[in-house]
Amino acid sequence: MFTNARSAAILIIGNEILSGRTRDANIQMISEALGKHGIRVREARVVEDRYEAIVYALNGLRASHDFVFTTGGIGPTHDDITTECIAGAFGRVAIENPAAVQRLVAYYGPAGMNEARLKMAHVVAGATLIDNPISAAPGFRIENVFVLPGVPQILEAMLPSIIASLPSGQPILSRTITAWIREGEIASDLASVQNTHPNLDVGSYPFAHDGRYGTSLVIRGTDAEGLELALTAVCAFLITRGAEFARAE
Amino acid sequence: MFTNARSAAILIIGNEILSGRTRDANIQMISEALGKHGIRVREARVVEDRYEAIVYALNGLRASHDFVFTTGGIGPTHDDITTECIAGAFGRVAIENPAAVQRLVAYYGPAGMNEARLKMAHVVAGATLIDNPISAAPGFRIENVFVLPGVPQILEAMLPSIIASLPSGQPILSRTITAWIREGEIASDLASVQNTHPNLDVGSYPFAHDGRYGTSLVIRGTDAEGLELALTAVCAFLITRGAEFARAE
Repeated sequence: MFTNARSAAILIIGNEILSGRTRDANIQMISEALGKHGIRVREARVVEDRYEAIVYALNGLRASHDFVFTTGGIGPTHDDITTECIAGAFGRVAIENPAAVQRLVAYYGPAGMNEARLKMAHVVAGATLIDNPISAAPGFRIENVFVLPGVPQILEAMLPSIIASLPSGQPILSRTITAWIREGEIASDLASVQNTHPNLDVGSYPFAHDGRYGTSLVIRGTDAEGLELALTAVCAFLITRGAEFARAE
Repeated sequence: MFTNARSAAILIIGNEILSGRTRDANIQMISEALGKHGIRVREARVVEDRYEAIVYALNGLRASHDFVFTTGGIGPTHDDITTECIAGAFGRVAIENPAAVQRLVAYYGPAGMNEARLKMAHVVAGATLIDNPISAAPGFRIENVFVLPGVPQILEAMLPSIIASLPSGQPILSRTITAWIREGEIASDLASVQNTHPNLDVGSYPFAHDGRYGTSLVIRGTDAEGLELALTAVCAFLITRGAEFARAE
Protein backbone atom coordinates (compact mmCIF):
# COMPACT_ATOMS: atom_id res chain seq x y z
CA MET A 1 0.00 0.00 0.00
CA PHE A 2 1.28 3.45 -0.84
CA THR A 3 1.22 5.51 2.30
CA ASN A 4 2.77 8.78 1.22
CA ALA A 5 -0.47 10.34 -0.01
CA ARG A 6 -2.64 12.65 2.11
CA SER A 7 -5.88 11.00 3.15
CA ALA A 8 -9.46 12.11 2.74
CA ALA A 9 -12.87 10.84 3.79
CA ILE A 10 -16.27 11.46 2.22
CA LEU A 11 -19.48 11.87 4.20
CA ILE A 12 -22.64 11.55 2.11
CA ILE A 13 -25.63 12.97 3.97
CA GLY A 14 -28.86 11.78 2.48
CA ASN A 15 -31.82 9.55 3.12
CA GLU A 16 -32.31 9.26 -0.63
CA ILE A 17 -29.13 7.18 -0.98
CA LEU A 18 -29.95 4.89 1.96
CA SER A 19 -33.53 4.36 0.78
CA GLY A 20 -32.23 3.07 -2.55
CA ARG A 21 -34.11 5.79 -4.41
CA THR A 22 -30.91 7.34 -5.74
CA ARG A 23 -27.64 5.70 -6.73
CA ASP A 24 -24.77 7.70 -5.29
CA ALA A 25 -22.50 9.38 -7.81
CA ASN A 26 -20.56 11.67 -5.48
CA ILE A 27 -18.15 9.17 -3.94
CA GLN A 28 -16.79 8.28 -7.35
CA MET A 29 -16.64 11.89 -8.52
CA ILE A 30 -14.77 13.17 -5.47
CA SER A 31 -12.45 10.17 -5.24
CA GLU A 32 -11.41 10.41 -8.84
CA ALA A 33 -10.73 14.16 -8.66
CA LEU A 34 -8.76 13.85 -5.42
CA GLY A 35 -6.72 10.92 -6.70
CA LYS A 36 -5.47 12.96 -9.63
CA HIS A 37 -4.38 15.60 -7.14
CA GLY A 38 -2.48 13.05 -5.08
CA ILE A 39 -5.00 12.75 -2.24
CA ARG A 40 -6.24 9.29 -1.36
CA VAL A 41 -9.83 8.71 -0.24
CA ARG A 42 -9.63 6.10 2.49
CA GLU A 43 -13.21 5.95 3.73
CA ALA A 44 -16.70 6.99 2.76
CA ARG A 45 -19.85 6.97 4.83
CA VAL A 46 -23.48 7.50 4.00
CA VAL A 47 -25.65 8.63 6.90
CA GLU A 48 -29.27 9.63 7.40
CA ASP A 49 -30.50 13.19 7.70
CA ARG A 50 -30.28 12.89 11.48
CA TYR A 51 -28.36 15.19 13.81
CA GLU A 52 -26.66 12.58 16.00
CA ALA A 53 -25.68 10.41 13.03
CA ILE A 54 -24.10 13.31 11.16
CA VAL A 55 -22.24 14.77 14.14
CA TYR A 56 -20.90 11.36 15.21
CA ALA A 57 -19.68 10.47 11.72
CA LEU A 58 -18.15 13.88 11.08
CA ASN A 59 -16.23 13.99 14.34
CA GLY A 60 -14.86 10.51 13.72
CA LEU A 61 -13.78 11.28 10.18
CA ARG A 62 -12.28 14.73 10.70
CA ALA A 63 -10.06 13.40 13.48
CA SER A 64 -8.71 10.53 11.35
CA HIS A 65 -8.19 12.09 7.92
CA ASP A 66 -6.40 15.09 6.47
CA PHE A 67 -9.57 16.27 4.72
CA VAL A 68 -13.29 15.50 4.90
CA PHE A 69 -15.79 16.26 2.15
CA THR A 70 -19.47 16.26 3.03
CA THR A 71 -22.21 16.36 0.41
CA GLY A 72 -25.90 17.04 0.83
CA GLY A 73 -28.21 18.77 3.25
CA ILE A 74 -27.32 22.43 2.67
CA GLY A 75 -30.47 23.45 0.77
CA PRO A 76 -33.47 25.50 1.94
CA THR A 77 -35.86 22.78 3.15
CA HIS A 78 -36.56 21.28 6.58
CA ASP A 79 -34.57 18.13 5.77
CA ASP A 80 -31.42 20.20 5.11
CA ILE A 81 -29.76 20.05 8.51
CA THR A 82 -26.10 19.69 7.60
CA THR A 83 -24.99 23.20 8.58
CA GLU A 84 -26.38 22.98 12.12
CA CYS A 85 -24.82 19.50 12.45
CA ILE A 86 -21.39 20.73 11.36
CA ALA A 87 -21.74 23.63 13.81
CA GLY A 88 -22.62 21.16 16.56
CA ALA A 89 -19.70 18.91 15.70
CA PHE A 90 -17.30 21.86 16.00
CA GLY A 91 -19.01 23.29 19.09
CA ARG A 92 -19.75 26.48 17.17
CA VAL A 93 -22.86 28.26 15.97
CA ALA A 94 -24.22 28.77 12.49
CA ILE A 95 -24.49 32.44 11.53
CA GLU A 96 -25.82 34.39 8.59
CA ASN A 97 -22.93 35.23 6.30
CA PRO A 98 -23.35 38.67 4.63
CA ALA A 99 -21.39 37.70 1.51
CA ALA A 100 -23.55 34.60 1.10
CA VAL A 101 -26.70 36.71 1.47
CA GLN A 102 -25.41 39.03 -1.26
CA ARG A 103 -24.83 36.14 -3.63
CA LEU A 104 -28.29 34.73 -3.03
CA VAL A 105 -29.98 38.10 -3.49
CA ALA A 106 -28.06 38.62 -6.72
CA TYR A 107 -29.18 35.22 -7.96
CA TYR A 108 -32.84 35.09 -6.85
CA GLY A 109 -33.54 38.81 -6.92
CA PRO A 110 -34.70 40.66 -3.80
CA ALA A 111 -38.33 39.55 -4.42
CA GLY A 112 -37.25 35.91 -4.66
CA MET A 113 -35.69 35.87 -1.20
CA ASN A 114 -37.54 34.28 1.70
CA GLU A 115 -36.70 32.71 5.04
CA ALA A 116 -36.01 29.29 3.53
CA ARG A 117 -33.53 30.66 1.00
CA LEU A 118 -31.90 32.84 3.65
CA LYS A 119 -31.12 29.62 5.48
CA MET A 120 -28.67 28.82 2.65
CA ALA A 121 -26.65 31.87 3.72
CA HIS A 122 -26.04 30.36 7.14
CA VAL A 123 -22.58 28.92 7.61
CA VAL A 124 -20.61 27.80 10.63
CA ALA A 125 -18.92 30.71 12.41
CA GLY A 126 -15.36 31.08 11.17
CA ALA A 127 -15.94 29.19 7.93
CA THR A 128 -14.77 30.29 4.49
CA LEU A 129 -17.28 30.35 1.63
CA ILE A 130 -16.85 28.07 -1.38
CA ASP A 131 -18.13 29.40 -4.72
CA ASN A 132 -21.11 27.79 -6.35
CA PRO A 133 -20.99 28.84 -10.01
CA ILE A 134 -24.32 27.17 -10.79
CA SER A 135 -26.93 28.04 -8.21
CA ALA A 136 -25.25 30.67 -6.01
CA ALA A 137 -25.83 28.99 -2.61
CA PRO A 138 -22.25 28.59 -1.39
CA GLY A 139 -20.56 25.67 0.28
CA PHE A 140 -18.08 26.36 3.04
CA ARG A 141 -14.82 25.18 4.53
CA ILE A 142 -14.24 24.92 8.24
CA GLU A 143 -10.80 23.67 9.28
CA ASN A 144 -10.27 20.45 7.32
CA VAL A 145 -13.94 19.95 6.43
CA PHE A 146 -15.49 20.97 3.10
CA VAL A 147 -19.27 21.25 3.17
CA LEU A 148 -20.77 20.78 -0.28
CA PRO A 149 -24.13 20.26 -1.98
CA GLY A 150 -25.46 16.84 -2.91
CA VAL A 151 -26.64 17.52 -6.46
CA PRO A 152 -23.87 15.98 -8.59
CA GLN A 153 -23.98 18.62 -11.34
CA ILE A 154 -23.45 21.41 -8.80
CA LEU A 155 -20.82 19.47 -6.88
CA GLU A 156 -18.93 18.86 -10.09
CA ALA A 157 -18.82 22.57 -10.84
CA MET A 158 -17.54 23.38 -7.35
CA LEU A 159 -14.82 20.76 -7.03
CA PRO A 160 -12.08 22.14 -9.31
CA SER A 161 -11.51 25.34 -7.33
CA ILE A 162 -11.54 23.45 -4.03
CA ILE A 163 -9.04 20.90 -5.23
CA ALA A 164 -6.80 23.57 -6.68
CA SER A 165 -6.66 25.12 -3.20
CA LEU A 166 -5.35 21.92 -1.59
CA PRO A 167 -1.69 21.01 -1.28
CA SER A 168 -1.00 18.61 -4.11
CA GLY A 169 0.82 15.35 -3.71
CA GLN A 170 2.24 12.99 -6.27
CA PRO A 171 -0.69 12.02 -8.50
CA ILE A 172 -2.02 8.56 -7.77
CA LEU A 173 -1.38 6.62 -10.96
CA SER A 174 -3.62 3.75 -11.96
CA ARG A 175 -3.12 1.19 -14.73
CA THR A 176 -5.52 -1.55 -15.71
CA ILE A 177 -4.99 -4.78 -17.58
CA THR A 178 -8.08 -6.58 -18.76
CA ALA A 179 -7.34 -10.30 -19.03
CA TRP A 180 -9.53 -13.13 -20.29
CA ILE A 181 -8.63 -15.49 -17.51
CA ARG A 182 -10.35 -16.16 -14.19
CA GLU A 183 -8.71 -14.61 -11.16
CA GLY A 184 -8.49 -17.97 -9.38
CA GLU A 185 -6.00 -19.14 -12.03
CA ILE A 186 -3.60 -16.26 -11.56
CA ALA A 187 -3.98 -15.57 -7.85
CA SER A 188 -0.54 -16.82 -6.88
CA ASP A 189 1.18 -14.94 -9.73
CA LEU A 190 -0.61 -11.79 -8.72
CA ALA A 191 0.21 -12.18 -5.03
CA SER A 192 3.85 -12.43 -5.94
CA VAL A 193 3.68 -9.16 -7.91
CA GLN A 194 2.06 -7.51 -4.88
CA ASN A 195 4.77 -8.90 -2.58
CA THR A 196 7.50 -7.59 -4.86
CA HIS A 197 5.90 -4.13 -4.89
CA PRO A 198 4.60 -3.46 -1.38
CA ASN A 199 4.27 0.28 -2.10
CA LEU A 200 1.70 -0.38 -4.84
CA ASP A 201 -1.90 -1.60 -4.57
CA VAL A 202 -2.47 -4.59 -6.80
CA GLY A 203 -6.19 -5.28 -7.16
CA SER A 204 -8.08 -8.05 -8.92
CA TYR A 205 -11.71 -7.65 -10.05
CA PRO A 206 -13.53 -10.49 -11.78
CA PHE A 207 -16.13 -9.84 -14.45
CA ALA A 208 -18.29 -11.77 -16.89
CA HIS A 209 -19.07 -10.57 -20.39
CA ASP A 210 -21.14 -12.46 -22.95
CA GLY A 211 -20.68 -15.62 -20.93
CA ARG A 212 -16.88 -15.32 -20.87
CA TYR A 213 -15.03 -14.73 -17.62
CA GLY A 214 -12.23 -12.27 -17.17
CA THR A 215 -10.36 -10.24 -14.59
CA SER A 216 -9.48 -6.57 -14.40
CA LEU A 217 -6.07 -6.20 -12.85
CA VAL A 218 -5.56 -2.74 -11.42
CA ILE A 219 -2.24 -1.41 -10.17
CA ARG A 220 -2.18 1.88 -8.29
CA GLY A 221 0.43 3.99 -6.63
CA THR A 222 2.57 7.07 -6.89
CA ASP A 223 5.77 5.30 -7.96
CA ALA A 224 5.70 5.50 -11.78
CA GLU A 225 8.79 3.36 -12.23
CA GLY A 226 7.57 0.62 -9.90
CA LEU A 227 4.21 0.70 -11.62
CA GLU A 228 5.81 -0.04 -14.99
CA LEU A 229 7.82 -2.89 -13.50
CA ALA A 230 4.71 -4.38 -11.91
CA LEU A 231 2.77 -4.05 -15.16
CA THR A 232 5.55 -5.82 -17.04
CA ALA A 233 5.50 -8.62 -14.48
CA VAL A 234 1.73 -8.99 -14.85
CA CYS A 235 1.97 -9.11 -18.64
CA ALA A 236 4.73 -11.71 -18.35
CA PHE A 237 2.70 -14.13 -16.26
CA LEU A 238 -0.38 -13.62 -18.45
CA ILE A 239 1.69 -14.58 -21.50
CA THR A 240 3.02 -17.64 -19.63
CA ARG A 241 -0.56 -18.62 -18.77
CA GLY A 242 -1.64 -18.15 -22.38
CA ALA A 243 -4.25 -15.53 -21.47
CA GLU A 244 -5.51 -12.95 -23.93
CA PHE A 245 -5.21 -9.46 -22.41
CA ALA A 246 -5.20 -5.73 -23.15
CA ARG A 247 -3.62 -2.80 -21.32
CA ALA A 248 -5.65 0.31 -20.70
CA GLU A 249 -4.61 3.57 -19.03
CA MET B 1 -39.03 9.63 11.06
CA PHE B 2 -40.56 6.17 11.12
CA THR B 3 -38.81 4.19 13.81
CA ASN B 4 -40.70 0.93 13.82
CA ALA B 5 -38.59 -0.72 11.10
CA ARG B 6 -35.64 -2.98 11.83
CA SER B 7 -32.33 -1.34 10.95
CA ALA B 8 -29.52 -2.48 8.71
CA ALA B 9 -26.09 -1.22 7.77
CA ILE B 10 -24.04 -1.90 4.65
CA LEU B 11 -20.25 -2.28 4.64
CA ILE B 12 -18.69 -2.05 1.18
CA ILE B 13 -15.16 -3.43 1.21
CA GLY B 14 -13.21 -2.34 -1.80
CA ASN B 15 -10.38 -0.09 -2.89
CA GLU B 16 -11.98 0.10 -6.35
CA ILE B 17 -14.86 2.19 -5.00
CA LEU B 18 -12.62 4.54 -3.01
CA SER B 19 -10.22 5.03 -5.91
CA GLY B 20 -13.11 6.23 -8.08
CA ARG B 21 -12.46 3.45 -10.57
CA THR B 22 -15.88 1.88 -9.98
CA ARG B 23 -19.18 3.52 -9.13
CA ASP B 24 -20.84 1.58 -6.34
CA ALA B 25 -24.09 -0.16 -7.22
CA ASN B 26 -24.48 -2.36 -4.15
CA ILE B 27 -25.72 0.21 -1.63
CA GLN B 28 -28.70 1.01 -3.83
CA MET B 29 -29.42 -2.63 -4.63
CA ILE B 30 -29.37 -3.81 -1.02
CA SER B 31 -31.24 -0.78 0.32
CA GLU B 32 -34.03 -1.13 -2.17
CA ALA B 33 -34.48 -4.84 -1.56
CA LEU B 34 -34.44 -4.43 2.23
CA GLY B 35 -36.87 -1.52 2.15
CA LYS B 36 -39.45 -3.64 0.37
CA HIS B 37 -39.05 -6.20 3.14
CA GLY B 38 -39.58 -3.58 5.82
CA ILE B 39 -35.94 -3.22 6.89
CA ARG B 40 -34.45 0.25 6.88
CA VAL B 41 -30.82 0.83 5.91
CA ARG B 42 -29.56 3.52 8.25
CA GLU B 43 -25.88 3.67 7.40
CA ALA B 44 -23.42 2.58 4.75
CA ARG B 45 -19.65 2.63 4.84
CA VAL B 46 -17.01 2.06 2.22
CA VAL B 47 -13.63 0.98 3.57
CA GLU B 48 -10.28 -0.01 2.11
CA ASP B 49 -9.05 -3.58 1.79
CA ARG B 50 -7.21 -3.17 5.09
CA TYR B 51 -7.59 -5.41 8.14
CA GLU B 52 -7.89 -2.73 10.83
CA ALA B 53 -10.32 -0.64 8.79
CA ILE B 54 -12.64 -3.57 8.11
CA VAL B 55 -12.62 -4.93 11.68
CA TYR B 56 -13.21 -1.50 13.19
CA ALA B 57 -16.11 -0.68 10.87
CA LEU B 58 -17.72 -4.09 11.23
CA ASN B 59 -17.60 -4.09 15.01
CA GLY B 60 -19.12 -0.62 15.13
CA LEU B 61 -21.92 -1.48 12.72
CA ARG B 62 -22.89 -4.89 14.04
CA ALA B 63 -23.32 -3.48 17.55
CA SER B 64 -25.60 -0.65 16.38
CA HIS B 65 -27.85 -2.31 13.78
CA ASP B 66 -30.10 -5.34 13.59
CA PHE B 67 -28.33 -6.60 10.46
CA VAL B 68 -25.09 -5.84 8.62
CA PHE B 69 -24.43 -6.71 4.98
CA THR B 70 -20.84 -6.70 3.77
CA THR B 71 -19.91 -6.89 0.11
CA GLY B 72 -16.55 -7.60 -1.48
CA GLY B 73 -13.31 -9.28 -0.61
CA ILE B 74 -14.33 -12.94 -0.53
CA GLY B 75 -12.67 -14.03 -3.79
CA PRO B 76 -9.50 -16.06 -4.35
CA THR B 77 -6.84 -13.34 -4.66
CA HIS B 78 -4.42 -11.76 -2.17
CA ASP B 79 -6.57 -8.62 -1.89
CA ASP B 80 -9.57 -10.67 -0.72
CA ILE B 81 -9.18 -10.42 3.04
CA THR B 82 -12.77 -10.06 4.21
CA THR B 83 -13.16 -13.54 5.73
CA GLU B 84 -10.11 -13.21 7.96
CA CYS B 85 -11.28 -9.74 8.99
CA ILE B 86 -14.76 -10.97 9.92
CA ALA B 87 -13.14 -13.80 11.88
CA GLY B 88 -10.95 -11.26 13.67
CA ALA B 89 -13.91 -9.01 14.44
CA PHE B 90 -15.75 -11.93 16.05
CA GLY B 91 -12.65 -13.29 17.81
CA ARG B 92 -13.02 -16.54 15.87
CA VAL B 93 -10.98 -18.38 13.26
CA ALA B 94 -11.68 -19.00 9.58
CA ILE B 95 -11.93 -22.68 8.74
CA GLU B 96 -12.33 -24.72 5.59
CA ASN B 97 -16.01 -25.62 5.21
CA PRO B 98 -16.51 -29.10 3.66
CA ALA B 99 -19.84 -28.20 2.03
CA ALA B 100 -18.25 -25.13 0.45
CA VAL B 101 -15.37 -27.24 -0.85
CA GLN B 102 -17.88 -29.64 -2.43
CA ARG B 103 -19.66 -26.79 -4.20
CA LEU B 104 -16.41 -25.39 -5.55
CA VAL B 105 -15.20 -28.79 -6.76
CA ALA B 106 -18.55 -29.39 -8.46
CA TYR B 107 -18.28 -26.03 -10.20
CA TYR B 108 -14.60 -25.87 -11.19
CA GLY B 109 -14.00 -29.62 -11.52
CA PRO B 110 -11.33 -31.36 -9.45
CA ALA B 111 -8.62 -30.31 -11.94
CA GLY B 112 -9.69 -26.67 -11.67
CA MET B 113 -9.15 -26.53 -7.91
CA ASN B 114 -6.07 -24.88 -6.48
CA GLU B 115 -5.00 -23.22 -3.26
CA ALA B 116 -6.44 -19.85 -4.25
CA ARG B 117 -9.87 -21.26 -5.03
CA LEU B 118 -9.83 -23.37 -1.89
CA LYS B 119 -9.55 -20.08 0.01
CA MET B 120 -13.12 -19.33 -1.10
CA ALA B 121 -14.25 -22.34 0.96
CA HIS B 122 -12.97 -20.72 4.14
CA VAL B 123 -15.67 -19.25 6.33
CA VAL B 124 -15.74 -18.05 9.91
CA ALA B 125 -16.21 -20.90 12.39
CA GLY B 126 -19.88 -21.28 13.24
CA ALA B 127 -21.13 -19.47 10.14
CA THR B 128 -23.95 -20.67 7.89
CA LEU B 129 -23.31 -20.80 4.13
CA ILE B 130 -25.31 -18.61 1.74
CA ASP B 131 -25.99 -20.06 -1.73
CA ASN B 132 -24.33 -18.49 -4.75
CA PRO B 133 -26.37 -19.64 -7.76
CA ILE B 134 -23.97 -18.00 -10.23
CA SER B 135 -20.39 -18.83 -9.41
CA ALA B 136 -20.63 -21.39 -6.57
CA ALA B 137 -18.35 -19.65 -4.04
CA PRO B 138 -20.73 -19.17 -1.12
CA GLY B 139 -21.29 -16.20 1.13
CA PHE B 140 -21.93 -16.79 4.79
CA ARG B 141 -23.90 -15.55 7.74
CA ILE B 142 -22.44 -15.18 11.20
CA GLU B 143 -24.83 -13.87 13.87
CA ASN B 144 -26.35 -10.69 12.40
CA VAL B 145 -23.70 -10.25 9.69
CA PHE B 146 -24.15 -11.38 6.07
CA VAL B 147 -20.90 -11.67 4.12
CA LEU B 148 -21.47 -11.34 0.40
CA PRO B 149 -19.53 -10.88 -2.84
CA GLY B 150 -18.92 -7.49 -4.42
CA VAL B 151 -19.79 -8.27 -8.05
CA PRO B 152 -23.29 -6.76 -8.42
CA GLN B 153 -24.63 -9.49 -10.74
CA ILE B 154 -23.70 -12.20 -8.24
CA LEU B 155 -24.93 -10.20 -5.26
CA GLU B 156 -28.26 -9.65 -7.00
CA ALA B 157 -28.72 -13.39 -7.47
CA MET B 158 -27.93 -14.10 -3.82
CA LEU B 159 -30.09 -11.44 -2.18
CA PRO B 160 -33.61 -12.87 -2.59
CA SER B 161 -33.02 -16.01 -0.53
CA ILE B 162 -31.26 -14.03 2.19
CA ILE B 163 -34.05 -11.50 2.44
CA ALA B 164 -36.70 -14.19 2.47
CA SER B 165 -34.94 -15.64 5.54
CA LEU B 166 -35.21 -12.38 7.52
CA PRO B 167 -38.16 -11.44 9.70
CA SER B 168 -40.27 -9.11 7.60
CA GLY B 169 -41.65 -5.82 8.80
CA GLN B 170 -44.23 -3.53 7.31
CA PRO B 171 -42.91 -2.64 3.86
CA ILE B 172 -41.42 0.83 3.67
CA LEU B 173 -43.64 2.69 1.23
CA SER B 174 -42.33 5.52 -0.88
CA ARG B 175 -44.24 8.00 -3.02
CA THR B 176 -42.73 10.70 -5.19
CA ILE B 177 -44.21 13.88 -6.57
CA THR B 178 -42.24 15.65 -9.26
CA ALA B 179 -43.03 19.34 -9.20
CA TRP B 180 -41.87 22.13 -11.51
CA ILE B 181 -41.16 24.57 -8.75
CA ARG B 182 -37.95 25.33 -6.87
CA GLU B 183 -37.72 23.87 -3.41
CA GLY B 184 -36.99 27.26 -1.85
CA GLU B 185 -40.50 28.39 -2.81
CA ILE B 186 -42.27 25.54 -1.05
CA ALA B 187 -39.96 24.95 1.91
CA SER B 188 -42.39 26.25 4.52
CA ASP B 189 -45.35 24.30 3.08
CA LEU B 190 -43.28 21.18 3.06
CA ALA B 191 -42.02 21.66 6.62
CA SER B 192 -45.59 21.92 7.77
CA VAL B 193 -46.46 18.59 6.10
CA GLN B 194 -43.46 17.02 7.85
CA ASN B 195 -44.54 18.48 11.20
CA THR B 196 -48.07 17.13 10.77
CA HIS B 197 -46.69 13.66 9.99
CA PRO B 198 -43.71 13.07 12.27
CA ASN B 199 -43.79 9.32 11.58
CA LEU B 200 -43.07 9.86 7.87
CA ASP B 201 -39.91 11.06 6.16
CA VAL B 202 -40.62 14.00 3.88
CA GLY B 203 -37.66 14.64 1.60
CA SER B 204 -37.01 17.34 -0.97
CA TYR B 205 -34.55 16.89 -3.86
CA PRO B 206 -33.95 19.69 -6.35
CA PHE B 207 -33.17 18.93 -9.99
CA ALA B 208 -32.66 20.78 -13.24
CA HIS B 209 -33.83 19.48 -16.58
CA ASP B 210 -33.47 21.28 -19.92
CA GLY B 211 -32.81 24.52 -18.08
CA ARG B 212 -35.98 24.24 -15.96
CA TYR B 213 -35.82 23.74 -12.21
CA GLY B 214 -37.93 21.32 -10.27
CA THR B 215 -38.11 19.37 -7.04
CA SER B 216 -38.73 15.72 -6.31
CA LEU B 217 -40.79 15.43 -3.16
CA VAL B 218 -40.44 12.00 -1.60
CA ILE B 219 -42.59 10.74 1.26
CA ARG B 220 -41.61 7.49 2.97
CA GLY B 221 -42.93 5.45 5.82
CA THR B 222 -44.85 2.36 6.81
CA ASP B 223 -48.15 4.14 7.54
CA ALA B 224 -50.10 3.85 4.28
CA GLU B 225 -52.98 5.99 5.46
CA GLY B 226 -50.75 8.78 6.74
CA LEU B 227 -48.81 8.63 3.49
CA GLU B 228 -51.93 9.30 1.46
CA LEU B 229 -52.90 12.20 3.71
CA ALA B 230 -49.43 13.71 3.38
CA LEU B 231 -49.51 13.28 -0.39
CA THR B 232 -52.86 15.02 -0.56
CA ALA B 233 -51.50 17.88 1.52
CA VAL B 234 -48.50 18.24 -0.81
CA CYS B 235 -50.72 18.25 -3.90
CA ALA B 236 -52.93 20.87 -2.26
CA PHE B 237 -50.10 23.35 -1.64
CA LEU B 238 -48.64 22.74 -5.09
CA ILE B 239 -52.02 23.64 -6.63
CA THR B 240 -52.17 26.75 -4.42
CA ARG B 241 -48.69 27.74 -5.62
CA GLY B 242 -49.69 27.15 -9.23
CA ALA B 243 -46.99 24.54 -9.77
CA GLU B 244 -47.20 21.89 -12.45
CA PHE B 245 -46.62 18.44 -10.91
CA ALA B 246 -46.99 14.70 -11.42
CA ARG B 247 -47.33 11.84 -8.96
CA ALA B 248 -45.28 8.72 -9.41
CA GLU B 249 -45.20 5.55 -7.32
